[in-house]
Amino acid sequence: MSVTERLLANADSYAGRFLEGDRPDPPSTHVAIVSCMDARIDLYGIFGLSGQAHMIRNAGGIITDDVIRSLSISQRNLGTREVILVHHTDCRMLTFTDEAFADQVERDTGVRPTWAAGSFTDLEEDVRKSIAKVRDSPFVLAKDSIRGFVYDVHTGKLTEVYTAT
Amino acid sequence: MSVTERLLANADSYAGRFLEGDRPDPPSTHVAIVSCMDARIDLYGIFGLSGQAHMIRNAGGIITDDVIRSLSISQRNLGTREVILVHHTDCRMLTFTDEAFADQVERDTGVRPTWAAGSFTDLEEDVRKSIAKVRDSPFVLAKDSIRGFVYDVHTGKLTEVYTAT
Repeated sequence: MSVTERLLANADSYAGRFLEGDRPDPPSTHVAIVSCMDARIDLYGIFGLSGQAHMIRNAGGIITDDVIRSLSISQRNLGTREVILVHHTDCRMLTFTDEAFADQVERDTGVRPTWAAGSFTDLEEDVRKSIAKVRDSPFVLAKDSIRGFVYDVHTGKLTEVYTAT
Repeated sequence: MSVTERLLANADSYAGRFLEGDRPDPPSTHVAIVSCMDARIDLYGIFGLSGQAHMIRNAGGIITDDVIRSLSISQRNLGTREVILVHHTDCRMLTFTDEAFADQVERDTGVRPTWAAGSFTDLEEDVRKSIAKVRDSPFVLAKDSIRGFVYDVHTGKLTEVYTAT
């Protein structure tokens, strides 16, 4: 049995105890959270949510065009107004360079990725850069609350990154 | 008090009851889940997870270069081997066209996005396309278990999309 099969068995029992009913599309908190895909970051637990916020996640929690696209749709079409950015300690993105990653992929597959791996060398610095990218994007409407954090995967603690404005 | 402040108060209490300790970086299920950012999809609840899988989420749960980048890092650097794709009913991406979205953004901001909004008109068809995109990418290593689903946000039910191979 694949792990997927086991997860699907859980999805069945989840549906069985699901309270049917209309649920509104726009998130009730009006918050969008951008974070790393890392398995150790339980955004629902950390922020006390059972939904209610948009969750945008990729490798590193970095600000790519795809994240700007998602934030733009989140704000324009679904009314979110606050942005929370979460990077985390012990992130694999700190352990390689974009060039080494692309070299390895090219060696293994014969094809060099057209995208950069998005690695970084300093967590706080990358959070600051990420805040700036969101703030400077013409496609993000609401900029009053764009705040960036580092989550410690070993202590569960979220620390705000100071941002000079 | 902003909503962010309220969520941060929860993050403090979460850290207070967090069991400190080393946690391994590679997800124990070896699964990566790609889904829409929609607030109504609680992937932890649906799949019975408290972490243990990579969570990749964007507007629509569509397969962009950023998702391929994330899956590539997930599989190459962190050993995941199965991919689960989740679209959902009542998705806002079904309600506009890429051109109308870009027109609106351009009217409002004076700048036309360089990225496509990624809208689609048929959920199952987009899941099938998404599976094909992952399967056809040279940057995704493990292709034995790439399965796509539609989640019903009103009933909590996950339905597999049949894929001819």
